[in-house]
Amino acid sequence: MKVAKAIVTAAARGQRSLPLQTLIDRDGQQKSVLGIVIEEIMRAGVQEICLIVHPDDESAYRSVAGDAARHVTFIPQHDARGYGHALWCARDFAGKEPFLHLVGDHLYVSRTSTGCAQRVVETAVKESCALSGVQATREALLPNFGALAGKRISGKTDLYTVDHVIEKPSPTEAEQHLITPGLRAGHYLCFFGIHVLTPAIMEILDAQVAAADRVPTISAALRELAGKEKYLALEMHDYRYNVGVKYGLLNAQFALALSGNDREDVIAMLMELLLQREQHARERGPA
Amino acid sequence: MKVAKAIVTAAARGQRSLPLQTLIDRDGQQKSVLGIVIEEIMRAGVQEICLIVHPDDESAYRSVAGDAARHVTFIPQHDARGYGHALWCARDFAGKEPFLHLVGDHLYVSRTSTGCAQRVVETAVKESCALSGVQATREALLPNFGALAGKRISGKTDLYTVDHVIEKPSPTEAEQHLITPGLRAGHYLCFFGIHVLTPAIMEILDAQVAAADRVPTISAALRELAGKEKYLALEMHDYRYNVGVKYGLLNAQFALALSGNDREDVIAMLMELLLQREQHARERGPA
Repeated sequence: MKVAKAIVTAAARGQRSLPLQTLIDRDGQQKSVLGIVIEEIMRAGVQEICLIVHPDDESAYRSVAGDAARHVTFIPQHDARGYGHALWCARDFAGKEPFLHLVGDHLYVSRTSTGCAQRVVETAVKESCALSGVQATREALLPNFGALAGKRISGKTDLYTVDHVIEKPSPTEAEQHLITPGLRAGHYLCFFGIHVLTPAIMEILDAQVAAADRVPTISAALRELAGKEKYLALEMHDYRYNVGVKYGLLNAQFALALSGNDREDVIAMLMELLLQREQHARERGPA
Repeated sequence: MKVAKAIVTAAARGQRSLPLQTLIDRDGQQKSVLGIVIEEIMRAGVQEICLIVHPDDESAYRSVAGDAARHVTFIPQHDARGYGHALWCARDFAGKEPFLHLVGDHLYVSRTSTGCAQRVVETAVKESCALSGVQATREALLPNFGALAGKRISGKTDLYTVDHVIEKPSPTEAEQHLITPGLRAGHYLCFFGIHVLTPAIMEILDAQVAAADRVPTISAALRELAGKEKYLALEMHDYRYNVGVKYGLLNAQFALALSGNDREDVIAMLMELLLQREQHARERGPA
């Protein structure tokens, strides 16, 4: 198995301007969020990238992608039918090959010298199957994620079978259906946002899209995939930042800076701001 | 005197994407940098806004301005002849009236209930003259600013005459020409980035632009203005953030959050990130 293509979804309402936002990456260079996502993909050895976008956004995205735009095929999502439908829009791009899939509003910071997408791709290739990055996550955070139940595969590091998938489960649903033996109590495997998927997922989405009475969802499609073919989960120990939530960009920028060469400078800058405020508060005296 | 118009320059190379960046304002609302600048202007009672932009940027700026776009006249700067030339592009918009002027890559956080631009406008109207916001600035920071020399006007709070202006003076130039009595040693009055200017400035820029052998500069024009008519400086005690420098957006976002309702949450978020890194560093053991 070889993974030569990647599909990134970035068409959701309220998320469209995120790929255009500017951050300073760990290397100290100013980049767009889109540029950082593209680098994450290229670091995994994947050169053909498809970006699913709102029809009005291609030119803005193209301009912030810079030189990397030559690696990118833009596909507009004309109907706002959600995430599963967005991925399905790239079915012709994917063809009969496996592909890497990331969402366009997350940034990943690896704790090792291997990139996060790179590790997912390398493990999928080694296991020759579909594979999702997952992270053990506290019950309280379940409303934010798709979650799954599996069993640790003995003799393999961080690898699990995928037995069941539920999108944003309630605590009760999770307790009944999503216990994965060996995890800390009250923890569940939740999707990390990086997957290697096989052509089967597009066939499953095809049927979902054709069924006019429901919105295609990735979690439902992955649940079906788990019943059809070998599909594993890989536990990630890295950092993932959702830039689409409130203060998500601030958090991601601070995290990138803490992992990079400018660590000391940025901490000093923030401490100076805090001290300046305290000093001015003292000058004003008690309110 | 009445100030009904504002001119914002946002066409400089390398600064063009800044107005499009998204931040959470003190009120907890997500806004573009452009949106925050427009609110600063409207808070000063100014309703007609002219934005000098790179010819390719109007549609992107219009989209992030949202409803406020109906207050904005876009004027393209077709030749990249710098800041003074950009301001001059709005000469027909300004007509024979005084106007508020801000740069598009700075954000202002007032320490009082009066907005920064609002205080500059109110003082200019009261004094019925051109007026620049200034801040006492350490000598080491002079390479970043236009600086001026003046004399404190007795009986008025924070008001100075403007006797001389030099753009980014060397320490020697500053010591010879820019001493303002009464400031702390080694401090100079530097522009804060908010001005109320009179029609005379456009006449001065007219002559500068016509002189093909030099690039029009605001500091040179303000120096000439000081020789022609009443022109004062108002010392500001507020915060100003240049989002165009490295980590400028991070700094501005953190500063806005520290001044707003989300102060505690944001400090907690950053502390959690710091602690997480420390914890993981300990887990890894000595490098």
